[in-house]
Amino acid sequence: MPELNSIIKKVALADQFIAVRSFTEKLCNTLETEDMVLQSMTDASPTRWHLAHTTWFFESFVLKQFDPSYRSFHPEFDFLFNSYYVQAGKRFCRSDRGLLSRPTVNTVMAFRRHINDVIPILINKVLGTAAEREFFRVLEIGLNHEQQHQELILTDIKHALSLNPLQPAIFPGDIPRATPPGRIQWESISEGIYELGTDLESFHFDNEGPRHKQFLSSYHIADRTVTNEEFLEFIKAGGYSNQVLWLDKAWAEMSAEQWKRPYYWNESDDGWTEYTMYGTRLLDMNAPVCHISYYEADAYARWAGYRLPTEAEWEVAALPRSVQGHFAEDFLFQATDTSAFFGTVWEWTGSAYTPYPGYSPEPGALGEYNGKFMCDQHVLRGGSVATSGSHIRPTYRNFFPGYARWQFAGIRLARDWDA
Amino acid sequence: MPELNSIIKKVALADQFIAVRSFTEKLCNTLETEDMVLQSMTDASPTRWHLAHTTWFFESFVLKQFDPSYRSFHPEFDFLFNSYYVQAGKRFCRSDRGLLSRPTVNTVMAFRRHINDVIPILINKVLGTAAEREFFRVLEIGLNHEQQHQELILTDIKHALSLNPLQPAIFPGDIPRATPPGRIQWESISEGIYELGTDLESFHFDNEGPRHKQFLSSYHIADRTVTNEEFLEFIKAGGYSNQVLWLDKAWAEMSAEQWKRPYYWNESDDGWTEYTMYGTRLLDMNAPVCHISYYEADAYARWAGYRLPTEAEWEVAALPRSVQGHFAEDFLFQATDTSAFFGTVWEWTGSAYTPYPGYSPEPGALGEYNGKFMCDQHVLRGGSVATSGSHIRPTYRNFFPGYARWQFAGIRLARDWDA
Amino acid sequence: MPELNSIIKKVALADQFIAVRSFTEKLCNTLETEDMVLQSMTDASPTRWHLAHTTWFFESFVLKQFDPSYRSFHPEFDFLFNSYYVQAGKRFCRSDRGLLSRPTVNTVMAFRRHINDVIPILINKVLGTAAEREFFRVLEIGLNHEQQHQELILTDIKHALSLNPLQPAIFPGDIPRATPPGRIQWESISEGIYELGTDLESFHFDNEGPRHKQFLSSYHIADRTVTNEEFLEFIKAGGYSNQVLWLDKAWAEMSAEQWKRPYYWNESDDGWTEYTMYGTRLLDMNAPVCHISYYEADAYARWAGYRLPTEAEWEVAALPRSVQGHFAEDFLFQATDTSAFFGTVWEWTGSAYTPYPGYSPEPGALGEYNGKFMCDQHVLRGGSVATSGSHIRPTYRNFFPGYARWQFAGIRLARDWDA
Amino acid sequence: MPELNSIIKKVALADQFIAVRSFTEKLCNTLETEDMVLQSMTDASPTRWHLAHTTWFFESFVLKQFDPSYRSFHPEFDFLFNSYYVQAGKRFCRSDRGLLSRPTVNTVMAFRRHINDVIPILINKVLGTAAEREFFRVLEIGLNHEQQHQELILTDIKHALSLNPLQPAIFPGDIPRATPPGRIQWESISEGIYELGTDLESFHFDNEGPRHKQFLSSYHIADRTVTNEEFLEFIKAGGYSNQVLWLDKAWAEMSAEQWKRPYYWNESDDGWTEYTMYGTRLLDMNAPVCHISYYEADAYARWAGYRLPTEAEWEVAALPRSVQGHFAEDFLFQATDTSAFFGTVWEWTGSAYTPYPGYSPEPGALGEYNGKFMCDQHVLRGGSVATSGSHIRPTYRNFFPGYARWQFAGIRLARDWDA
Repeated sequence: MPELNSIIKKVALADQFIAVRSFTEKLCNTLETEDMVLQSMTDASPTRWHLAHTTWFFESFVLKQFDPSYRSFHPEFDFLFNSYYVQAGKRFCRSDRGLLSRPTVNTVMAFRRHINDVIPILINKVLGTAAEREFFRVLEIGLNHEQQHQELILTDIKHALSLNPLQPAIFPGDIPRATPPGRIQWESISEGIYELGTDLESFHFDNEGPRHKQFLSSYHIADRTVTNEEFLEFIKAGGYSNQVLWLDKAWAEMSAEQWKRPYYWNESDDGWTEYTMYGTRLLDMNAPVCHISYYEADAYARWAGYRLPTEAEWEVAALPRSVQGHFAEDFLFQATDTSAFFGTVWEWTGSAYTPYPGYSPEPGALGEYNGKFMCDQHVLRGGSVATSGSHIRPTYRNFFPGYARWQFAGIRLARDWDA
Repeated sequence: MPELNSIIKKVALADQFIAVRSFTEKLCNTLETEDMVLQSMTDASPTRWHLAHTTWFFESFVLKQFDPSYRSFHPEFDFLFNSYYVQAGKRFCRSDRGLLSRPTVNTVMAFRRHINDVIPILINKVLGTAAEREFFRVLEIGLNHEQQHQELILTDIKHALSLNPLQPAIFPGDIPRATPPGRIQWESISEGIYELGTDLESFHFDNEGPRHKQFLSSYHIADRTVTNEEFLEFIKAGGYSNQVLWLDKAWAEMSAEQWKRPYYWNESDDGWTEYTMYGTRLLDMNAPVCHISYYEADAYARWAGYRLPTEAEWEVAALPRSVQGHFAEDFLFQATDTSAFFGTVWEWTGSAYTPYPGYSPEPGALGEYNGKFMCDQHVLRGGSVATSGSHIRPTYRNFFPGYARWQFAGIRLARDWDA
Repeated sequence: MPELNSIIKKVALADQFIAVRSFTEKLCNTLETEDMVLQSMTDASPTRWHLAHTTWFFESFVLKQFDPSYRSFHPEFDFLFNSYYVQAGKRFCRSDRGLLSRPTVNTVMAFRRHINDVIPILINKVLGTAAEREFFRVLEIGLNHEQQHQELILTDIKHALSLNPLQPAIFPGDIPRATPPGRIQWESISEGIYELGTDLESFHFDNEGPRHKQFLSSYHIADRTVTNEEFLEFIKAGGYSNQVLWLDKAWAEMSAEQWKRPYYWNESDDGWTEYTMYGTRLLDMNAPVCHISYYEADAYARWAGYRLPTEAEWEVAALPRSVQGHFAEDFLFQATDTSAFFGTVWEWTGSAYTPYPGYSPEPGALGEYNGKFMCDQHVLRGGSVATSGSHIRPTYRNFFPGYARWQFAGIRLARDWDA
Repeated sequence: MPELNSIIKKVALADQFIAVRSFTEKLCNTLETEDMVLQSMTDASPTRWHLAHTTWFFESFVLKQFDPSYRSFHPEFDFLFNSYYVQAGKRFCRSDRGLLSRPTVNTVMAFRRHINDVIPILINKVLGTAAEREFFRVLEIGLNHEQQHQELILTDIKHALSLNPLQPAIFPGDIPRATPPGRIQWESISEGIYELGTDLESFHFDNEGPRHKQFLSSYHIADRTVTNEEFLEFIKAGGYSNQVLWLDKAWAEMSAEQWKRPYYWNESDDGWTEYTMYGTRLLDMNAPVCHISYYEADAYARWAGYRLPTEAEWEVAALPRSVQGHFAEDFLFQATDTSAFFGTVWEWTGSAYTPYPGYSPEPGALGEYNGKFMCDQHVLRGGSVATSGSHIRPTYRNFFPGYARWQFAGIRLARDWDA
């Protein structure tokens, strides 16, 4: 009964469309209109822009492709809300997104409502037609795309509001304290050929495939992530001023920026504090260290006598586990647990972000989604408190430049067998 | 009856306080909340910041000085809304004003209302006390300070919204066309000692005094400002690519920025257009050229075979005239007339902004108002469509760096007698 | 007779010391004193600096380590000529190497002669002592280090003199024309586990090991490198302005720098020319394209419908071949042949420069030689006309940032079996 | 006998030509070839460039204008050694002058000798022709131009070699200690109309004229310049960290560069030292403070309770004095005396560099000499130890941007009568 399965899947997709779209809006409920305009750095975007861009994605790649009668909500939005899709036309300069006050938040929300209204109508129209398969494929990409921007909405607004001397809380409420984890235990995985990457059946991004073989030497991998307390030892031992621990490029950039601690940490009269989505709090020593760059993760691992796992090593260790952990659905945007491979904090790997053997990008403009970023970026795995659990798979590859600190990213250690 | 005069003056000041403060708010009536957060360049500030900073000025220099029981509206506002008064404490980095979304516009408006309420009460309290004279002196500075920021609110938001591809109109309505002016007529003023600067009786900024003698050689000064049509001839004659016409520093900066026309001009299929507070319009050839830098004013004058007047030459020519022209009170923020010395467009002079002989700054923090900017800036005279008429005097000295283009600034020509 | 072998090896090393050192000086014979002071960009160093730094290397890591009585030639040279060895002390800022006129070239040559004199004496002293093995290990590193700087002397001075409007020839003489190569033939290599990296017996850098297994999918690799003529087709087809062909980072940097052709190419009235070590010449269409970045190599491959080989793919294909080609010993510093895997032009691979499984750096300061650069760089293989043939092995890993164009680097294509 | 006078003057000019040219070369006698290639900042030029540029000036403006048969020494030198004369053709980018190693110093010296040979021949040819007057006018400009570059040769090479950790002495020998000056005495000059600027008879630059009237208010001017000891008190009083003392622009630039003392000063274990043309020496407390910017001069004056004189005030005070002091002819390039208005150190005035009333530049390319720099620069008066005494007049106007510190510039104080 593949057809029935197909219908079920489509109903699920329609439901998921509504769920994902409304979750995005839920994330913004406590923001002020003024907050939604801020762009605090080139790498970040205003909330308003995320809200509009994810909507533009459905308009451009779903509505315009599958409904010939569809007319743009506004003729300039193509230009304003295209992020980087060269094949989808010209776009507004990324670093100037914070210079746009119009369309207003209200207009953007009207744009969202419009798309929210017409997509379900189109779903019904397309059902059973020849375009059905392709339509759902692109719709599913659009939903996963929006989930990625949900995470960026959170990390970008955290970055922006952290710069405000008022140190405003973005969400009300408290953060539970982490329980002390035990010493790191080391899992052992022995050498051999492993099959990695996606099996192509369920949804995945093009960068997760194709499935391919890789030979791994024997290795150990830690059963938990590094804690704030452990990272503080690195600081106290002079880690940030010991050049020998750092990659050459890391040292150059880190010295220029005068890094001395993880991004949201501060040292006050009361001790170490951390800016969180709930305002500034005392640092929780048992929570996983978070908001560090690849550079810091790599230097910490070297100092500790270990190294970061490669993404293949991480995937092999993660594959047998269920995708459980602390995710965005929990609506608690602060890392408090070191035990899971999935959720809580993204885990920097030692792998550069490059294509898998046999990789080919999606055809058309959507092929720009991943492939063109495969240069001088570093792979992170596992998801974070700001990632939807429904968005994560063991094969999922996230990537950021080595200096990026505003994501919820932490450290899992690895080592060779003899080391 | 000097006392009666004094009372009358104070009643007038109280009225003026209400008038000036509400005029500021009137200027923002058509702005969206999102607009008021934008900072489009370091030289400009968000509307919200201007609204708060002018209010902070009264809190810091009036309320805190003259009412010992006064408590700050918010303890952090001193830090957030001090512009550059070193002696008034630390301040938030100027170029990051656009990164503040909190306090929100609503909170800033509440801050304004609070100050609007308590100042009149304090006026009544102070009346007849020993502090009265000093109180009114500072209050008057505060009002003139707020009038200066009214102009910046206008020029800054024009700059910010001009960058939006939607090219939004800030005010509704139309702009009257200018009537063609006649050929330039030259006034002749002969050499001699002139007394310049303020006579110290009525309100003035410290940079306008002291009154002093200056010897002027004979000169001619134009009876009107340069039109768009005349400036267009300069463009067509290759003025922007003829290095010989430009000051060395002007050429370096202008080439780097690739200037080719006045700041808000554009060339479209329909001909020359101009971004105005009322949206993008066809260029009015008979209107005064506006939104040009000192560099462009100087290059134009050289190309035309003339020069800019010094500020002394301008002042001597302007002194006998009444302060009439097109001002902010007209609520039409576009230059349409070349005839007046006052209002419409600021006029770049050939004078560097330096202290007058015998100049001494105000005592205390208010002494930072003018003196410390007397370096590598250029004097403008006369006011503009964005300046309140009540704010302008023949001795009034405005100043900006040579590259500044976002003010309503134009050109009046001068020449030596023999030239 | 391992001892005899050892003696033979040491005699060979002593001979090699003299040979390598004098080859360095031979490379500079035609340079003017003035040339040797230039630093044309941060990535390049003055000839004088290379001459001194390679000498400092022997002083610091050989003489000071193995001769307790040795006194520095000059106390400041440690600071001036340390490149990046943190553990060897402070060093002069890299980007300011062109600001040093003292010590003069004559003094640096005296420094070289001094070291050239004392090292052979030390060789004799150390022979037969317990330190012998370690001594020769470090001496051999020093010689390989100097060979690397020989190549940089050539590429750096080519870059520097190319900026001179006089376009001076660095060497006298002519360049032979390349013969037209045939169409690309594709070698086929089938999937399996391959052993890669060094076998640890003969000299190698730490980044070439350890020997390890890697699973490769089946692939084809081209039998020759890409010609100037082929690359010109890419230019004519608009390759430099077609954003879809470029990695995101490549496009950003390349657009900012306005690249339109390989680094030393120019288009003149006579057609395409190229700046060479022998002055500016007409481009040889049959010669391999050279002086391109990783970005251009990658974009070209994408445009041509292929890809770059990984470094593992390159090594597997190169391993069975003898290390023959056009090398620095030929003293002809211009690429004229597309046929060899070794020499002529370095070949960009698609591999990011990361450590091999089980990698550990050399102990001590020499451990900074390679490991700390394993971040955001790209591997090149095979050597070039500016590399000594005695310096190259199939396992040799060279690396540069993606934007680097001043090396003699070109393109070999690869593809998947099904593609 | 005006003709005889004319002949005498011309003979004098021919002698002066030889004297000025050979003095330039004498200044370079102790420099190494390597030194002469350095460009340590955009504002400075390599010695080699100064040697060639001054020679190019005679070739372009004298030989090519007055000898139709003259052929360029080298066709590319026009491009390479034109500084900024737009009307004299294209020129090599100023900030890249340090990237030229060719033509070599030897070739430049050959160029100098060639011009030195042909100019005297041309003098004889032109004598008695109609072109004579204009010829000598331009020749005299050329000589004065070369004298200006003599000073820059000294200040630029001092700057360049100061960056070398070896801190080389440029000249051999010792510096005499200064004798302690008495307290500052104040000359009083009363208000009135003064005639300023040149009388047009003897040689002068166009910026020194025309002679014009200026009204001065009464003022006092110090009889000597400020000493190192006095400036040290400013430092000890926290002058460099007290923002209130600094012009706004000064503070911004000075903070960014982290200035804490005059440019060549250092604090060592032995106390305050100063880099001089004779190597690093202990600071002479009685010598005039030197190598400070306008910003520092202005801040010091404000701290001391005084101000800088205007250039008119300086000129009125200097006019009655003979032009005596410590000049380049003394061949001692270190300031050791505070007493003279002329020589020793340039004196920053409070005047912006703007044209005098009635100013018109020289016709043709030589008109670019001064006029186009009249923007955001500050006037210095009096000459320094690096200026030829034969080059200085009371009306002489030197000018530099406010941040410039590498000239031999110091401070003379002034004050109003009532202050």
